Amino acid sequence: MALVDRILLGPGPSNPYPEATAALSAPLLGHLDPEFLRVLDETCARLRRVWGTENARTLPLSGTGSIGMEAAFANFVRPGDVVVVGVNGLFGERMVDVAGRYGADVVRVDHDWGQPVDVERVLAAHPEPSLVAAVHAETSTGVRSDIKELSLAVHRRDQRALVLADCVTSLAGIDVQVDAWDVDIAYSGTQKCLGVAPGLAPFTVSERAWDRRVQRPPTWYLDLNLIGAYVDGSSGGRTYHHTAPTAMIASLHAALGRILEEGLDTVWERHRAVGARLHEGLADLGLTLFAAEGHRLPELTTVRVPEGVDSAKTRQILLTEYGVEIGPGVGAFASSVWRIGLMGHNARLDRVELILGALHQILSRS
Amino acid sequence: MALVDRILLGPGPSNPYPEATAALSAPLLGHLDPEFLRVLDETCARLRRVWGTENARTLPLSGTGSIGMEAAFANFVRPGDVVVVGVNGLFGERMVDVAGRYGADVVRVDHDWGQPVDVERVLAAHPEPSLVAAVHAETSTGVRSDIKELSLAVHRRDQRALVLADCVTSLAGIDVQVDAWDVDIAYSGTQKCLGVAPGLAPFTVSERAWDRRVQRPPTWYLDLNLIGAYVDGSSGGRTYHHTAPTAMIASLHAALGRILEEGLDTVWERHRAVGARLHEGLADLGLTLFAAEGHRLPELTTVRVPEGVDSAKTRQILLTEYGVEIGPGVGAFASSVWRIGLMGHNARLDRVELILGALHQILSRS
Repeated sequence: MALVDRILLGPGPSNPYPEATAALSAPLLGHLDPEFLRVLDETCARLRRVWGTENARTLPLSGTGSIGMEAAFANFVRPGDVVVVGVNGLFGERMVDVAGRYGADVVRVDHDWGQPVDVERVLAAHPEPSLVAAVHAETSTGVRSDIKELSLAVHRRDQRALVLADCVTSLAGIDVQVDAWDVDIAYSGTQKCLGVAPGLAPFTVSERAWDRRVQRPPTWYLDLNLIGAYVDGSSGGRTYHHTAPTAMIASLHAALGRILEEGLDTVWERHRAVGARLHEGLADLGLTLFAAEGHRLPELTTVRVPEGVDSAKTRQILLTEYGVEIGPGVGAFASSVWRIGLMGHNARLDRVELILGALHQILSRS
Repeated sequence: MALVDRILLGPGPSNPYPEATAALSAPLLGHLDPEFLRVLDETCARLRRVWGTENARTLPLSGTGSIGMEAAFANFVRPGDVVVVGVNGLFGERMVDVAGRYGADVVRVDHDWGQPVDVERVLAAHPEPSLVAAVHAETSTGVRSDIKELSLAVHRRDQRALVLADCVTSLAGIDVQVDAWDVDIAYSGTQKCLGVAPGLAPFTVSERAWDRRVQRPPTWYLDLNLIGAYVDGSSGGRTYHHTAPTAMIASLHAALGRILEEGLDTVWERHRAVGARLHEGLADLGLTLFAAEGHRLPELTTVRVPEGVDSAKTRQILLTEYGVEIGPGVGAFASSVWRIGLMGHNARLDRVELILGALHQILSRS
């Protein structure tokens, strides 16, 4: 059967870095093999560099990006804790859902979709929250919120409050600095700017948060006390928890090696440059960007579907005639917005010209 | 850097089927691509055949085998439910832990490690349990328990009780018949007899269990109501939940294709034959098997470390000089038992003679 080969310019997954694909099919190692444990340790060390942190507890969780969100609330929220969530898209909405399941007293601060989270409003929502959460790069709207400003402001007011940042679509695409920004808990997914297939959720925890962790969370699979005893070999021992997804971790290890070799600054600049060129090219096509100006992600662009154009049909033609996947909008914007990703290995000028040329051709027909 | 190439004869992961490895590195598809959804639907259909079930709710969960256990208790146990667990090894112990986290009133029925679960004792433990759980193939001890007898007995007494079976190390290695045995909830892992890298947990649910599911479980990531809305396309729509691990699912799809092409009966017979030859060969070396006779798994053999032999050192020599991984025992048997797996692609006569020959050489030295 012929293989189907796509160019993945949607909101993720993105086409992996070639090194990541090669590592996926390398000979499989056992999860307690000394060679694999060396790869795991090095993966955690590389993740620290990409996260901009020295957090000892930095590791890939065994699930797709959303498992990072679940682990965050499961391990750091107790019933009755006040959790303030800045909601400006689907993933902020999801935080409200997940935090509620773990018993949090959730205070949601709603924003129009397409706008960034307003730091002052989030601060004003509650005088003494246990945890403040927001999404750095909203995958549903293509908006960047200022997590640095939010985190520093929360901690200026209360050193004990925890700050949680969803970095699923930001890590290794735009500037993320966990330590410098004083973020306590952050997670990402491998299938976006990290350039790996979906299946792992890089996760990092500050000492401040670790000291306040739940000792026996409702979830066994995501109990960081148990996972840590396997991942952290610094004390000499490794306690088996669950069988680590060794092929996926080897793949992440390879992609991180590629990213660090290129240099994080260069990787960010590459994303910035292709995003700017895409935004410019879309404007030249007469299209209007959706996300608020000044807060647009370079790695994930939202653009309004022109009046009279069938959104789904256009995506269908892109897929079948050009082999190119882009994403629809989310929720109320499902048929009025497109999402175009230029992430990781796809943050390249050839991808930009491909999608601009194809869109131009298709829109000219209608 | 040279790749390390192991022969994985431990308790899993096992070396994947070549088709599974090839599919892992095939061009990546998006989780909403029609081509991928076709692969996903076919994967679920193939899983039904391997599970021996027509359960509509049969799907791969996005995590390693243990996430299957977590999903089972999270979705089908309410606080205060009486859950009887047959405990005859590490994974029975784990069930007690996980069920407790979800608020179950757990009644544990302990057995000596190395013995199968005693159906009469499990039945006698409580007159009207909500759920009865046991491990089909105990990975920690190499023992098979009679899930068929247990499940039919439970349902003869009470049609409403649910039966949960851990099939992590049995599925696609030995006979599993979810429908014929009237099992309600079962899960497995991809890295054992299914011959795929670790990262997915095949899961199946009967109608009886589905009708009694928890409507809003504490976990969002494993909420089967939400996952089902994405996986089940029979009603025409697919609601995005989390980004499915598309590469891993393509790999499982390929391995299942290989298994069904060979034929399930033939696959089971292959496991049976190599297990029997290994047991015979180990006896010829003067070694003693650990698991109770009549209840020994062909795909995972436990054998006592001979008096005076250093267990860890022997495994170390196997790994470094022969490139062969076998497993240590678990818990009290960590240094007195070895675990030798012949699973999936490794259920082959050449693997048996390799491990027998290597063990003979190493033990002759000491």
